[in-house]
Amino acid sequence: MRRCAAPFFGNTTMKLENNIQTDTTWDIYEDSFVSDQAVTTGSNYMIGNGYLGYRGTFADDRREQYVACVLTDTYDNADGVWKELVTAPNGMYTEIAVDGTPVRWRDAGWDDYRRDLNVRHGEWAVSAHWNTHGLRVSERRFASSDDLHLLVSRMEFVADRALKLAVRTGIDGEVWSLNGEHFVAYEPAERGDHLEIACVTGEHGYDVVVREVSELVFADGMHVASHLIDREERRILRTFELELEAGQTVVLTKYCSVYSTNDLRTHPNPFTVVSVPDAPPASGRVGIEPGASSVSLRAFSGSCEEFYRHHDPDRPAPEAVREAAGDTLKRAQDRGWTALREAHANRWERRWADMDIELVGDTVAQTALRYNLYHNIIATPAHTDHLPIGARGLSCQAYQGAAFWDEEVFNLPMFLFSAPGVARNILVYRYRTLDGARKKARELGYAGAYYAWISGDSGEEICPSYFFKDVISGRPIRNHFNDWQIHVSPDVAYTIWKYVSVTHDREYLRSYGAEIVFEVARFIASRTHYRADLDRYDIVRVLGPDEYHENVDNNFFTNYQARFVVSYAVEVHEWMTEHAEDDLKRLAGAIGLTDAEPARWRELADRIFVPEPDPETGVIPQFDGFFRLEDTTPGELKNRLLDRGEYWGWPNGVAVATQVSKQADVTQLFVLHPTAYDREVMKTNWEYYEPRTQHGSSLSPAVYAIVAAWVGHMDEAKRYFMKSCTVDLYNDNKAVSGGTFIGGIHTAACGVSWQIVVTGFAGLYLTDGGFGFRPHLPKGWDAVAFVLKRWGARLRVAIRRESADAGVTVTVSSDADSPATVAIEVGERQVDVAPGGEESVRFTG
Amino acid sequence: MRRCAAPFFGNTTMKLENNIQTDTTWDIYEDSFVSDQAVTTGSNYMIGNGYLGYRGTFADDRREQYVACVLTDTYDNADGVWKELVTAPNGMYTEIAVDGTPVRWRDAGWDDYRRDLNVRHGEWAVSAHWNTHGLRVSERRFASSDDLHLLVSRMEFVADRALKLAVRTGIDGEVWSLNGEHFVAYEPAERGDHLEIACVTGEHGYDVVVREVSELVFADGMHVASHLIDREERRILRTFELELEAGQTVVLTKYCSVYSTNDLRTHPNPFTVVSVPDAPPASGRVGIEPGASSVSLRAFSGSCEEFYRHHDPDRPAPEAVREAAGDTLKRAQDRGWTALREAHANRWERRWADMDIELVGDTVAQTALRYNLYHNIIATPAHTDHLPIGARGLSCQAYQGAAFWDEEVFNLPMFLFSAPGVARNILVYRYRTLDGARKKARELGYAGAYYAWISGDSGEEICPSYFFKDVISGRPIRNHFNDWQIHVSPDVAYTIWKYVSVTHDREYLRSYGAEIVFEVARFIASRTHYRADLDRYDIVRVLGPDEYHENVDNNFFTNYQARFVVSYAVEVHEWMTEHAEDDLKRLAGAIGLTDAEPARWRELADRIFVPEPDPETGVIPQFDGFFRLEDTTPGELKNRLLDRGEYWGWPNGVAVATQVSKQADVTQLFVLHPTAYDREVMKTNWEYYEPRTQHGSSLSPAVYAIVAAWVGHMDEAKRYFMKSCTVDLYNDNKAVSGGTFIGGIHTAACGVSWQIVVTGFAGLYLTDGGFGFRPHLPKGWDAVAFVLKRWGARLRVAIRRESADAGVTVTVSSDADSPATVAIEVGERQVDVAPGGEESVRFTG
Repeated sequence: MRRCAAPFFGNTTMKLENNIQTDTTWDIYEDSFVSDQAVTTGSNYMIGNGYLGYRGTFADDRREQYVACVLTDTYDNADGVWKELVTAPNGMYTEIAVDGTPVRWRDAGWDDYRRDLNVRHGEWAVSAHWNTHGLRVSERRFASSDDLHLLVSRMEFVADRALKLAVRTGIDGEVWSLNGEHFVAYEPAERGDHLEIACVTGEHGYDVVVREVSELVFADGMHVASHLIDREERRILRTFELELEAGQTVVLTKYCSVYSTNDLRTHPNPFTVVSVPDAPPASGRVGIEPGASSVSLRAFSGSCEEFYRHHDPDRPAPEAVREAAGDTLKRAQDRGWTALREAHANRWERRWADMDIELVGDTVAQTALRYNLYHNIIATPAHTDHLPIGARGLSCQAYQGAAFWDEEVFNLPMFLFSAPGVARNILVYRYRTLDGARKKARELGYAGAYYAWISGDSGEEICPSYFFKDVISGRPIRNHFNDWQIHVSPDVAYTIWKYVSVTHDREYLRSYGAEIVFEVARFIASRTHYRADLDRYDIVRVLGPDEYHENVDNNFFTNYQARFVVSYAVEVHEWMTEHAEDDLKRLAGAIGLTDAEPARWRELADRIFVPEPDPETGVIPQFDGFFRLEDTTPGELKNRLLDRGEYWGWPNGVAVATQVSKQADVTQLFVLHPTAYDREVMKTNWEYYEPRTQHGSSLSPAVYAIVAAWVGHMDEAKRYFMKSCTVDLYNDNKAVSGGTFIGGIHTAACGVSWQIVVTGFAGLYLTDGGFGFRPHLPKGWDAVAFVLKRWGARLRVAIRRESADAGVTVTVSSDADSPATVAIEVGERQVDVAPGGEESVRFTG
Repeated sequence: MRRCAAPFFGNTTMKLENNIQTDTTWDIYEDSFVSDQAVTTGSNYMIGNGYLGYRGTFADDRREQYVACVLTDTYDNADGVWKELVTAPNGMYTEIAVDGTPVRWRDAGWDDYRRDLNVRHGEWAVSAHWNTHGLRVSERRFASSDDLHLLVSRMEFVADRALKLAVRTGIDGEVWSLNGEHFVAYEPAERGDHLEIACVTGEHGYDVVVREVSELVFADGMHVASHLIDREERRILRTFELELEAGQTVVLTKYCSVYSTNDLRTHPNPFTVVSVPDAPPASGRVGIEPGASSVSLRAFSGSCEEFYRHHDPDRPAPEAVREAAGDTLKRAQDRGWTALREAHANRWERRWADMDIELVGDTVAQTALRYNLYHNIIATPAHTDHLPIGARGLSCQAYQGAAFWDEEVFNLPMFLFSAPGVARNILVYRYRTLDGARKKARELGYAGAYYAWISGDSGEEICPSYFFKDVISGRPIRNHFNDWQIHVSPDVAYTIWKYVSVTHDREYLRSYGAEIVFEVARFIASRTHYRADLDRYDIVRVLGPDEYHENVDNNFFTNYQARFVVSYAVEVHEWMTEHAEDDLKRLAGAIGLTDAEPARWRELADRIFVPEPDPETGVIPQFDGFFRLEDTTPGELKNRLLDRGEYWGWPNGVAVATQVSKQADVTQLFVLHPTAYDREVMKTNWEYYEPRTQHGSSLSPAVYAIVAAWVGHMDEAKRYFMKSCTVDLYNDNKAVSGGTFIGGIHTAACGVSWQIVVTGFAGLYLTDGGFGFRPHLPKGWDAVAFVLKRWGARLRVAIRRESADAGVTVTVSSDADSPATVAIEVGERQVDVAPGGEESVRFTG
């Protein structure tokens, strides 16, 4: 490990809020257990590796305790409404009994308890001592970063007294599944010394195979044999029965492998199912059998198996999936606990070397920050270029394990600047899903690519038309997230601009990015409307980022992004004309691009209307007519609720006819374009919108934190930073809104924590030559340090406070093997940082 | 009377449905009284004269029995939401007692009862005999068509036995007012032998004065003196006490005059109040004091009186209003009951000569039809060119006594063809309210004139943003009738086209119509959006006629009307360039019309997108994406209601996401353009939309009747004709929807009854040379006859069935003094009807 090996400061144990403590700022732990926070703590303490997420529950937890192992690339519709990732059977299941009496983790009869999450090495741990039973039990668990299909745990039992211990361990299929049953078949089996459950999903017929093997070993190396296989419909367990003497220790090591059909494909899943019809569910549910594949399966006359084979002839065979799981498990057994754990930890050390942010002077903030970076990392399928980052990562099935605009705007920037290869993979995912976006545009009557509001494997829109309900009448609400929230397309293209700017990855641009950018520009061209009497292009009927206001016109954020992106499309077209003529020709041929189109984009770039600051007040209207809405506050609206669970937005929620926003909208734009408006305008708008924002979205506080840091509201900046970083850590948000589960890890808030520090407090912005900084550290923060990459150069940036109010020093050093010199702008000063060089600049602005 | 003197057939007494009978088809009567239909019968039996409406209640009825005398030109806001006409104190109040015991009409102790409405002469009558009291009482009442400020009644008391009769009569201020108290002051007074109540409205300070005088006279001419004046806060009565011998008769004649401030103005009321703010009523009501004039009055620092004087310096003085009421009353007394009644009846005879439709062979239909024509006449302020026709006429305050698109499309055609001077007055009203329409357009960010959805005296939008409520949550609903239902503007301009076509009233066109048409074309130009990728103009976010579907794009009806009207604007501009250059110059100067504008309208006329029949099915989509909505039926939706009082439409009612329409929409367009689509297309669309239409609007059945007659569904045509004509007569509709009162006379259904017969069954359409007919009479109808006028020529049209299935003969005769020859097209045949001439053509098509 490079940078992490030399931290700026030593850590101390510290109590955070909400039953959370830390020893090292690289960990969180609790020493008491609060049972009614099972949803939250299961997410907070989870482990994962971007392929799977395993919730931080106890070994003997089951469905009711929200046990889940969420698998990527298994999008499947269980209930006719929600297409979501599946949760695999739980291969980490273990229950114990002492002298015939079950000992359960949640029974809380312990006199000593602690649950840990070590984010540095992605390891979960728990230990407890039961005086009554005379037993200490501890467990460590990790989801391997070295072999993504692998979960490993080690459980230690220490007897106070002579006792009989029974350990039942194996695979339990009774796990949490948010929106119904995905599996139409469970097949428990013994495979040599392995246990296995093989399942088949109902919509697509995907095979999901979980294998497990356990070893129980005394300190002296003696293995305990298992006695019995319990096989139930969805469960297969072995039992170890043994006698322990006082002071004796026994260790259970469990290896578990997980595979599903799509993991074995050499190319992304080509299988596309006709989406659920857009009609309202008459009685709260679309009338489709659970497990049936909506319209297309119904229309197909053969069996499910024939259907799958017909549509997906290259599907890997069930046997192949089993075999893969078996091979992985055997390999794991061979390597053993210690080697597996070391390989896993090394992967984490290498990651943190680039992705950590050190923060001197504020243990709580440092802990919260690392916790957030960790969750952004484990949510991200960095290993592949055909999967998205889910809005709740792999912490649960909420938000369908699918990507929103959050992916580009909240999750990616951290990777883009510190691990651009990860960002590239995700941006290639957007290329692989272009057809889904084209299909969506076409179906709604537009040209080009309209990226799905909720994008799974194929990129087709999987956002249902009905998901919230009117909690008073119980009637489903038609929200228009899936057809009016158009800014996702320009947001993707904007991120390509940013990625290419930071990396100069022209190959990405030529092979993937240009096609996306052109198709998005096409979409925008068809989605704008010319108002001849005003000689301008309007964008009507959209939702901006603020989701309480559907059906608005000329949303500042949307229009700005749209204008920016058509302008970028023109630029890309010009660049390719000059530098990549053949690629352009090929691309133009493939997508039927005419010469007239770039000309038209140029015209649009000049005339897409972007609302301007009000000449008197300086406030930018969030959309047309915004200032005519009732001017009130979130607090006042709360008083108007008839039911606490009510959705505040469309069509008739309390916020709709008011200026109260769910989340940052105008200010959100500033974050994406830090130099587009001067600080005075930002300040005016921050001050106007902040008291009118409810922060009903976890995306909101970070934006207010960043802009607050820029405009000098440092206390507010820090307050919003902590609010954003503790959305999950100190979670007391509702897990259900308008009848829909919205719990789990807010990965966007996790990802954006990096931006609050780097974009916000360090004041990072892109310049043509490199990076600029306008740093302002909040009270109590003495220094921050992080890595940035540009054009392959790896820069270590440290910003240290000189003394109270005397400004900061920005120190930038470049790795010796950096391929390029990077210009650094700090206030008015510019310095060049050459490979192996280091420069320091004071800043008092 | 001309035509009415020679009816085709003799009448017979006939029982209709719902407790209604007729003796002559010119009357309806009931011989039993159903107390829970008080709202409906009060409307059905009302009298009126276009200046005031007086409900058909009993002499001793009060507020609880929905007594109301609704006054035109008194728009006033009582509750901060509804700007509506006021109801004057009841000058026709009379209560009686026999031997000290009160005898009340509604106590129903009578053994003989009958309430009549004679629509031929606009006279209400009631009579009853109380065996228990030994008394017969009868009353006749009319609202003078000769002097519009006058109500007159005559009450006769006949004693069976010697008895003491007490008659208390005068003015009662305790009358029905729909949305709260309009009057901030009541001043009861004796003025010589007159009684008076003078009131002042709270918002505008209008004076409303009611005067009354009564005479009680024995058969021998002896006058009974009144003894006593009872004066309460809102009531002033005199008492007659007398003794009657057995068989003796005494007659009470009452004269009542009504005046309000605006009646004395020589020009329309210039007074404009800032409208109610567009914020949602937090607790069901906007927070404005009852009687206060919303924003503007609040912002004004002086007293109400000062406020009114400041804003309206030329306001007629209260004394002048009193004096006018006094003079009218004196004049009435001088003329006396018989002369007044004769003058009134003569007016009606002259009206009917042009406006009646005779219908041979169906007594029920004839009665219902005349009842509807009557109500359309009394709802219409034919006497002035600055007032609208209210959607509920003067039957109550519902719909604010104000105009909707109903006025042009439903009420006016009857006048336009049979009494074009009346139509002209109403179309001048649209000119006088152009500024209000311009203001609305401007406020919503458009050019030109956007006519109010609900148009009162000034033409400013008086449709509240919140009027329905979600009956389940009780929360008000933001409907967008006031900002998205744009077709009203083209509908007005379309009607100007029709009026000018029928009358050749070029003076109207030059002085009024052209300005409206140009301003509407301007509005449309600014309300359309160019979709460059499709090279067409879309119209997005509208409500079409079908009000269950707000927020739709490219509504067939709206787009067709818009395209028609910009095309007409081009035509008018060309005509004026050639024939009225000076007027055009003046007008262009006044409204700043540039040469570029007509050119732009020409471009729009070519490229406003109008949805076309689906190439496979022939069905025209009501709007973009219509066929993707759930295809279900009104009956099925009814089952989904959680509460019978629920509003079905926007934003989350049961119909919103379905193809179920509130009312005719696609078919509505056919009625306005009978030759634009061929009969096959109309048939296909009638058959598609008819089962999907709920007829939640009284505007709907008539449209289905007309188009059914055209496409050969004659039984359906007749069924819908009867449905339309009995909306009020057999009323069992809900009087309240979404918490809002919607009862009263459906004047649009009344007006359109003329069109069902003439446009529908007679198959009238306009030709360049005159009129065309494609008549199809329903089963049982032997003949219809009516008057049409074109270019000043008065034509009598009779369509007689030859024999069953053998077709009809159309006979058209022209008055000797008709100024023009009119070409008549019947099927393939064309004949010219010269002044004094008569032509008959057989039609079997």
